[in-house]
Amino acid sequence: MRTIDWVDGAVEIIDQTALPGRLTVLRLTTVEQLVAAIQRLAVRGAPALGVAGALGVAMAARQSTDRAAAVRLLETARPTAVNLAWGARRAAARLPEGADAVLAEALSVRDEEIEASAAMATRGADLLAELCGARPRLLTHCNTGALATVVGGTALGAVLELHRRDTLGTVVASETRPLLQGARLTAWELGRAGVTYRVAVDGAGPFLMARGEVDGVVLGADRICANGDVINKIGSYAHALGAHRAGIPFVVVAPESTVDMATASGADVEIEDRGADEVLSVHRSPAPDSRPPIPSAGPAGPDARSAGPGAESAGPDQSAGWATVGAVNPAFDVTPHDLVTAIVTERRVIRLDRGERV
Amino acid sequence: MRTIDWVDGAVEIIDQTALPGRLTVLRLTTVEQLVAAIQRLAVRGAPALGVAGALGVAMAARQSTDRAAAVRLLETARPTAVNLAWGARRAAARLPEGADAVLAEALSVRDEEIEASAAMATRGADLLAELCGARPRLLTHCNTGALATVVGGTALGAVLELHRRDTLGTVVASETRPLLQGARLTAWELGRAGVTYRVAVDGAGPFLMARGEVDGVVLGADRICANGDVINKIGSYAHALGAHRAGIPFVVVAPESTVDMATASGADVEIEDRGADEVLSVHRSPAPDSRPPIPSAGPAGPDARSAGPGAESAGPDQSAGWATVGAVNPAFDVTPHDLVTAIVTERRVIRLDRGERV
Repeated sequence: MRTIDWVDGAVEIIDQTALPGRLTVLRLTTVEQLVAAIQRLAVRGAPALGVAGALGVAMAARQSTDRAAAVRLLETARPTAVNLAWGARRAAARLPEGADAVLAEALSVRDEEIEASAAMATRGADLLAELCGARPRLLTHCNTGALATVVGGTALGAVLELHRRDTLGTVVASETRPLLQGARLTAWELGRAGVTYRVAVDGAGPFLMARGEVDGVVLGADRICANGDVINKIGSYAHALGAHRAGIPFVVVAPESTVDMATASGADVEIEDRGADEVLSVHRSPAPDSRPPIPSAGPAGPDARSAGPGAESAGPDQSAGWATVGAVNPAFDVTPHDLVTAIVTERRVIRLDRGERV
Repeated sequence: MRTIDWVDGAVEIIDQTALPGRLTVLRLTTVEQLVAAIQRLAVRGAPALGVAGALGVAMAARQSTDRAAAVRLLETARPTAVNLAWGARRAAARLPEGADAVLAEALSVRDEEIEASAAMATRGADLLAELCGARPRLLTHCNTGALATVVGGTALGAVLELHRRDTLGTVVASETRPLLQGARLTAWELGRAGVTYRVAVDGAGPFLMARGEVDGVVLGADRICANGDVINKIGSYAHALGAHRAGIPFVVVAPESTVDMATASGADVEIEDRGADEVLSVHRSPAPDSRPPIPSAGPAGPDARSAGPGAESAGPDQSAGWATVGAVNPAFDVTPHDLVTAIVTERRVIRLDRGERV
């Protein structure tokens, strides 16, 4: 099964917002539907977004629509990931040759991503084996598996390749708030592959490294700048700081299409803020039902009562201005190049720790 | 209103698991009820736990119960926080003098914590004003406000004192997974006080510091070791790494009762693991309702369908081994003393950055 594909004249995607509870395929027949799916993260991951951009242009080319507007819509659906615009532009360059040429180009983007995933898995696994010792215990962040690509994966593809070689220790999947791609998607993929893993809250990663429970960090990238700065899911930078302090490798696995030589450094990248709701929705929900109940209340049992007379006491407290709570929600962060041990692409291994340059 | 108090022969607490949705007071009449409330974090925060330990012994002293067993139960209800055992032992030392003496001691613990909060707020605010510039933008983690003490607070008490002086900039409250004490409790307290604040996921703090949006980090402690290592809520260490890299102060505000000279360093502290359910319950919940719906499905609308024939395709996917997912859930972490700028207690300011010792 492919995360994203071209099927009978339309784009089909696995709806990642429904996982792990439900495996659903969405059939998207217009650019507007595809852009909406991209924006609500039903399809996500830098390589998959590159394919989405290209297939979206292929769809527009076959329809009586404003093609230039469709390309712009796709290019700008998410501001930080470079692959989306890259894929859209690559397909759009063939528009003068007609719809069939555009589709052929888009399918090439897809097929190249499939090949690139396989090459990254091999190179990444080789490097992790070299840097992190025998049967390494690895930490990964967000989702960089098959769900982030077409099949295979980037960083998680390398982890799964170690598992296939029977040389993997264990995996910590950091949950990746606010949308929990690690806990939902990476955990799902690791479970299906039979890997021994544990989920951790994002704040725990650096401490697990300090405590000697992690031999290396491996994750993906949404953009790699000319100076080696890595733009990736929020929380990556904190894990890089933890790895640096613990003296363990911090390895980035991402396709060449993520490398953006036109962007000098992370300071030049617009970081998407995805708004307060993603952050705040979780604690507006009812209390998790896993919370143990209070002990049985007999005559001497705990006595829940309203907190005395007065405006702020009885029942649900609406006085806190909760509705006006704000959040800051950068979707990505910048890991400075000096914290990155190596970048692995389908073509090369760049040892930043040895002074090699992107 | 007090977070914890002695009312008519029993312990009353604000049920912090119900906030911010509901302000509820629980009346606890036995040590077993109190211990259960402590373990499910209905009452939490190092200073409040010290008072809980002392009041619990006072309750046991008035009842026909095995007092030694009750003291042990209280001392060990949570393994990492030093205050709980400290409060229980302080009250228990008066057991030979009778129940009234024990209660008097427990009420002294309570009253001293109230005074200590006021002193910490003043000293902490003075230091933050000195270290972080005019109208500082501060980041705090977990909850260290009135809900963590009796009234007032420790680190958040200092922040609120700056607000009372009209010299506070803004606050970032990091949400504090897995139980969201920052997003639920600190946000609630800041909102009620009229402070301008934003919630952030825990992984975002270090990046916000790197981006120049934070002038200082201020948080509490569950235990301070003899060498200055600070045991605090998981995620604190990652924020300390971020502050160090950004060159901004990292200030700990906690009562003297948190200082544990019998523990040489953080490596000697047992870190409570609170189990997988706290971490995993959030993503077993239904999707947050803030998630935008897919675009309206007309004849050309997205077509959700099962993912083809076969065992792993139709409907809810139970094949992923989701039920067997594990999590690693350390409740606290260790911030090494070299990352701590200063520790503020009710009696003193310890400038670790200037070589001062605990």
